[in-house]
Amino acid sequence: MAQKTISRAVVKRLPRYYRYLGELMNDGVERISSRDLSGRMNITASQIRQDLNNFGGFGQQGYGYNVRHLYDEIGKILGLDRTYSVVIIGAGHLGQAIANYGNFERRGFVFRAMFDIRPELSGQILNGIPVYPTSMLETYLSKNPADIAALTLPKESAQEMTARLVAAGVRGIWNFAHVDLDVPEGIVVENVHLSESLMRISYRLNNPEGEEQGENG
Amino acid sequence: MAQKTISRAVVKRLPRYYRYLGELMNDGVERISSRDLSGRMNITASQIRQDLNNFGGFGQQGYGYNVRHLYDEIGKILGLDRTYSVVIIGAGHLGQAIANYGNFERRGFVFRAMFDIRPELSGQILNGIPVYPTSMLETYLSKNPADIAALTLPKESAQEMTARLVAAGVRGIWNFAHVDLDVPEGIVVENVHLSESLMRISYRLNNPEGEEQGENG
Repeated sequence: MAQKTISRAVVKRLPRYYRYLGELMNDGVERISSRDLSGRMNITASQIRQDLNNFGGFGQQGYGYNVRHLYDEIGKILGLDRTYSVVIIGAGHLGQAIANYGNFERRGFVFRAMFDIRPELSGQILNGIPVYPTSMLETYLSKNPADIAALTLPKESAQEMTARLVAAGVRGIWNFAHVDLDVPEGIVVENVHLSESLMRISYRLNNPEGEEQGENG
Repeated sequence: MAQKTISRAVVKRLPRYYRYLGELMNDGVERISSRDLSGRMNITASQIRQDLNNFGGFGQQGYGYNVRHLYDEIGKILGLDRTYSVVIIGAGHLGQAIANYGNFERRGFVFRAMFDIRPELSGQILNGIPVYPTSMLETYLSKNPADIAALTLPKESAQEMTARLVAAGVRGIWNFAHVDLDVPEGIVVENVHLSESLMRISYRLNNPEGEEQGENG
């Protein structure tokens, strides 16, 4: 597919399209109009057509979208036609929660190992995933390259750990630590800042009219 | 403060301002120019001035921003000048990870109780928080009203549980289940869809040039 600039807003919506199309497939639906998809997703039909036009359309006038085809195409765009090796740095509750979430593996994200500085965790197998001491990170990654690292550790260690991961060839950082990371160009950081998410709730509870309407999420 | 329409993008940035200002305060910084704040936050100075103008400014020409004053004001805007009672529905790893995260409590989000359908968890105290059977939800909430509920349960139960929570007076839903929820007007839903976050990483790993530039997060 030819490279073009896709807006961040569209990229943010793509996984949601993918989820709805997957559910339609599970329900045995073979085709759907942008209007019907619009009703389910609470996005306007014209927004849907505009979003999908970014990727060359896939819809046919008077027929709508072929659900499986669109699902497969969006999956390819999202890079889900291959697998990703993921390591988790920090084997606390959050690390284990992520390791435990089976849906990721079905999408091609394979959690290979966890690392933790706490000696009592080393050598354990948590939810089927081995826990290694953090000191073994470089040795491990030199033999078992990873695409993505989930940072589920205290923010004080996050920047240093990111530098070690990037030096060891990891290109995607899934950052749960409550800090913004400095990374070289070409390294992808996706932040999940849970406190900020919680503060948006308190804001919205106190400002019921003070917010623009927008789609979910 | 007079109600006005604040764009969702600005609301999304406010918690990040709040975090940086809190760190500046911890570092003993008393005042800061929009230019210095810009350098730290990787947002343009004009964007910062524009964002903060939404709330009446707080900056003084030639002086910059008083860090503590701005921190307090943004805290008030975010509704952090009061406390919120939070319950967690689903006492698995993710529920425990959230319960375990001390920073939330410092911001005024007090986790009071967890609920789980698994009988073996009832009566336990996990990270200092009691676990009750889900069947006791309404009885508990009638005696201990909660502002916010975190949904850390399988998606199949999320909609039904949301209806029960809303009927019992909960107005904020922090939704970790991988499904969009239908709620009555006035109920706030904040979604944390982890699979979608992971798919944005795979997208960006495969489309290094195919994305607009934007600030962190």
